[in-house]
Order: sequence, then structure tokens, then C-alpha cells
Amino acid sequence: MSDQQSVVGVEQDPLKELYADWSEILGTAENLTIRLFRSIFDEWHQPTAEPTDVTYAEGTVGGVPGIWCYPEGADSSKVLLYTHGGGFAVGSASSHRKLAGHFAKALGVTSFVLDYRRAPEHPHPAGLEDAVSVFEALVESGIAPEDVTTIGDSAGGNLAVAAALSLKEQGKPLPGAVIALSPWLDMENKGETLVTNDATDALITVGLLEGMIAGVLGDRTSPSAPLANPLYGDYTGFPRLYITAGGAESLLDNATRLNDLATDAGVDVTLSVVDGQQHVFPFNAGHTAAADDQIAAIAKWFAG
Amino acid sequence: MSDQQSVVGVEQDPLKELYADWSEILGTAENLTIRLFRSIFDEWHQPTAEPTDVTYAEGTVGGVPGIWCYPEGADSSKVLLYTHGGGFAVGSASSHRKLAGHFAKALGVTSFVLDYRRAPEHPHPAGLEDAVSVFEALVESGIAPEDVTTIGDSAGGNLAVAAALSLKEQGKPLPGAVIALSPWLDMENKGETLVTNDATDALITVGLLEGMIAGVLGDRTSPSAPLANPLYGDYTGFPRLYITAGGAESLLDNATRLNDLATDAGVDVTLSVVDGQQHVFPFNAGHTAAADDQIAAIAKWFAG
Repeated sequence: MSDQQSVVGVEQDPLKELYADWSEILGTAENLTIRLFRSIFDEWHQPTAEPTDVTYAEGTVGGVPGIWCYPEGADSSKVLLYTHGGGFAVGSASSHRKLAGHFAKALGVTSFVLDYRRAPEHPHPAGLEDAVSVFEALVESGIAPEDVTTIGDSAGGNLAVAAALSLKEQGKPLPGAVIALSPWLDMENKGETLVTNDATDALITVGLLEGMIAGVLGDRTSPSAPLANPLYGDYTGFPRLYITAGGAESLLDNATRLNDLATDAGVDVTLSVVDGQQHVFPFNAGHTAAADDQIAAIAKWFAG
Repeated sequence: MSDQQSVVGVEQDPLKELYADWSEILGTAENLTIRLFRSIFDEWHQPTAEPTDVTYAEGTVGGVPGIWCYPEGADSSKVLLYTHGGGFAVGSASSHRKLAGHFAKALGVTSFVLDYRRAPEHPHPAGLEDAVSVFEALVESGIAPEDVTTIGDSAGGNLAVAAALSLKEQGKPLPGAVIALSPWLDMENKGETLVTNDATDALITVGLLEGMIAGVLGDRTSPSAPLANPLYGDYTGFPRLYITAGGAESLLDNATRLNDLATDAGVDVTLSVVDGQQHVFPFNAGHTAAADDQIAAIAKWFAG
């Protein structure tokens, strides 16, 4: 982002510009530590406009710290349990505050953005356990399970799906809905769009994913374990599900494969792939029509 | 900041911990680019709690982009013109959003946090010109000059003071008050606390300042030019002024020297030095009593 940024028109793609900038750093900086990776990825909020009429508060739910987003006039009996992306290793409640604020505002509910424990210090299932802990604490606090929606992007989309799978496996009440934004699910790191969209994806590469997979799986978890890799999950009885992805992204077929699995299991699932868009394109909320239209579509789906 | 951060007690100093962490990076990472410096310093918000009941909006004032902070119930006819710190080179409206939100809320007014042009791409007087442009645009928009307070920390404290000096020099209406938080004024890089507080300051070193000075002065500006180095300024007729600094910081005597100059010129000036505190200790707002007490003291002074 430049210092004196001009007003961003609908033709521009500030997220893609940020990804191109990050890719240059990742390609040239030697021995970039996980500490510096985290600094850089905390800039993920930059393409997102500040959502108006939303207030925030630090909080801890089920022992997990995070940020509450309170849109003016929102229904406080309904909560988006937002798990941020960043390969399970980077990203934070802070990097996703504005994005979660936009979703909470559009859907007319509150949101809690988790600072779940991150890899590689805390491999699978630490982040998933944190997401489930927050869900259970919300329910214990009096929120109806069906009034919680798990939502996340990229690795956080994985957690949003896996949290529902985990609760289902335990026979517990499920969230009312699950929203997966450009979910990253495939811990075996295969999938044809890694190749076919390699030229159009501004950030994601096979090598970047390899490092993230090693960190989150550690030495105990199989890349085909269903709660680490929800492409091996059983979707019978899964909540209604919205999946979105960008047509230009390398992880596109994580979204389409999840859609196929859920459809085959009889889930009420909606898939929206938007041509030309990058990984987690709703990050452009307030700055591009593609992002704003997608958030509006999800709000309509949520209400319907 | 750790992943699973426990509740911070009043005995702790999350700002000092962040500075210690940054110092370790600055000391070990080789060839850290200005780009990565900016990533790291955008973490400056981390020690600050999200202020509750404050909403935000992107804005552009006088051609300068930034973030508006709107505390619930605030007097929208009064504005804090907030210039962020970061050696004129790093930091942003984003890194200071929460801090400005705390001040706006405590003082019962709105705040506009500028993304002024940064050095070294834009040396002095670019940042100062941006601050003055915002002031003049606010006045043109109908805000009374005396209802604008210029406020900033570190290099942004310099800009808050220099903006008033510049307006005074031009014979224009002045802001009603100026608030300087750990101001960094001395572009000659002298001052005894650089030595006497070297062991207690967790971040600032002579070497770090040297690099920042070279960037902001460029090859055109003298280190004793009054609008670049307000320790050479004429304070006759200057607005009422509040200065705060930490007792442990290397830049402490920038604050005390400014206090002496303003006092000698007959300015209504208040200096508050808090023992044991670091550079811009109000960054701990919501997390330490020292920060919260200082902000409350400034609010009382502002109202009085």
C-alpha cells in the first residue's frame, strides 16, 4: 500500500497488489523467520476498508483470546465464530478484524475472531481444539448452537469446517451454518488448480503450502486425517454450508471438491466461484465490487 | 505477543515486551529493508486494548488519507488531529488507530489519524505539510481552529508541535491545544538522556535515531531548522501544551527541553513524566494503570 493512496476504484485489486508485494518479499528475503512472516501477514487487513458502525472489544471465550466485533444494532444472540487464515501459522484476530467486522455487519450479528494457538509451536489439533472450545463456551453462555455460524478463510476455512465435523463426530449440537472462504483443506497438497491456476494466483505456491503443512501436521498427524484434511470428512448431517473461492486461485479445487463431497452427502450447500478473483477476495471489502457483492450474497443466503 | 496471551495485569508492561522483541529483531536480522521495518512497526498497536464503543471509517482530509475514530456520543465539532510516530518513516494510521481511539474516547471528541507521507521517500517537510493540510481542511470544513487539537507521539509529537509552529509562522489561526506524547524533536541527536537512560530504554538507540534523521532530513534540511527540530522553535503565543514522557526513555529530555522552552515563552504548559515508563507508554492503554491514568489526566487537562 502506498503512502498517499488514491481512492481505489472497482477496477483495482488491492489484495492482489498486496500478494504481489508479499511474493516479492518471500522470493528475495533470505531466512525469513516465522516471526517476520507473522509481521508481514498481519498486513492482510490493508486491502480492507474499515467497516463503519462497528465497535470492538478484546475478549476471552472458552479460554481463547480474540476480538469481538459489534455492529451497531446487531442481533447479539447470534455469533459468527471467525477463524482467521494464514496457513495455521500466521494471521491473527487483528489481521482479520475488519473482514470479520464486514461479515458481522452484513449478516446483522456479532462476531468473535479467535487468536487460536498457531503452528508450528502448536500443531494440529491445537487450533481446532480452540475453535471447538469457543463454540462450546458460547453455547454454555446461552447462545443456541444453531445461532452460531463457524466461518473462516483459507486455513481458517479448514478450521470452520473441521470444527463442525469434530462436533458431529462427538455427537454434540452443531452450528447452524458453516461459511468457508477460499478454504484450504488438502494437506496432501494435490489438486489440479495448483498447476492450472499457478500463473494467475498472486500468492499461493506449492512450496509455500508444503512449509505450512509440515508445521501444522507436525510428526503426529496424517495428511489424510479427516479433522486435519476435511476432504476426508463425512458430511452426512453437516450444517448448511456456503463456499466461495476466486476463479484465479491455486486452491480453487479445495472449494469445488468440498462442494462435491457435501452435495453427495445431501448437505444444503452453495458454491460461489468468482472469475478472476484471488485467494480470500472478500478481503477487498469496501474497495471492490467483487468483494462487496460476495459479502452481500452471503448475507442474503444467511437470512434465507 | 504470545499466541495464548493471558490477561495482562497492571504489573506487566506489554509495550516494553514488544520493544524488547523488536530490538532483538533489529539486532539480529541482516539488511532489514524499510519495507520490513514498516511491517514490524505496524505491530505497535499490539500492546493497546481495543477501545470499546468506538467506530472507525476511512477518510481523506485535505488530500491526506487516514482513519476517523468516532467514539459513541463524542462531540463531532471537536477533532484530535493525530500524527503517528515511527521516526517519520514507519508507523501508520493503522498502527495508531487504537491509541487514537482511546484518546478520542477519553477526551470526548473525534480523531483523524493521518497516513502522512513518510521518509525517506518523502523527506521533510512532506509529513508536516500533510499535517498542516489536514488542519486547514478541517477549518475549511467548518471546524473552529480552536476546536482542533494537534496530538502525536514520538516523531508524530514533533509533527504536532511543528504544525502549530508552522501555522503561527504563517500568521494563521492556531489549534486550541497541542499534545505531545514522548515527542522526538532533536534532529541533532544530542541530549543527555540518550546516555543516562540508555540502559533502561527498551527500544531507542542513538544508531536507530541516526538512520531516521538521515531519512527525514534528506540532503536539503538542516538539523537545526525550527520546523524540523522544534527545539529551535519560537514558542511566543503558542497554544496550551501538554507534554508527557516516560522516566525510563532515552528521549526524555526532548520532553523536558520542550517544556523549558515553552515555559520561558509564557506558554500554558503541563509536563508529566512517569517513572519507569517506556517511550510512548500510553500504547499500553487498557492494559496498564500507568497508561490509563495518563490518558485520564490528559482528558482532565483538556476539559479544564
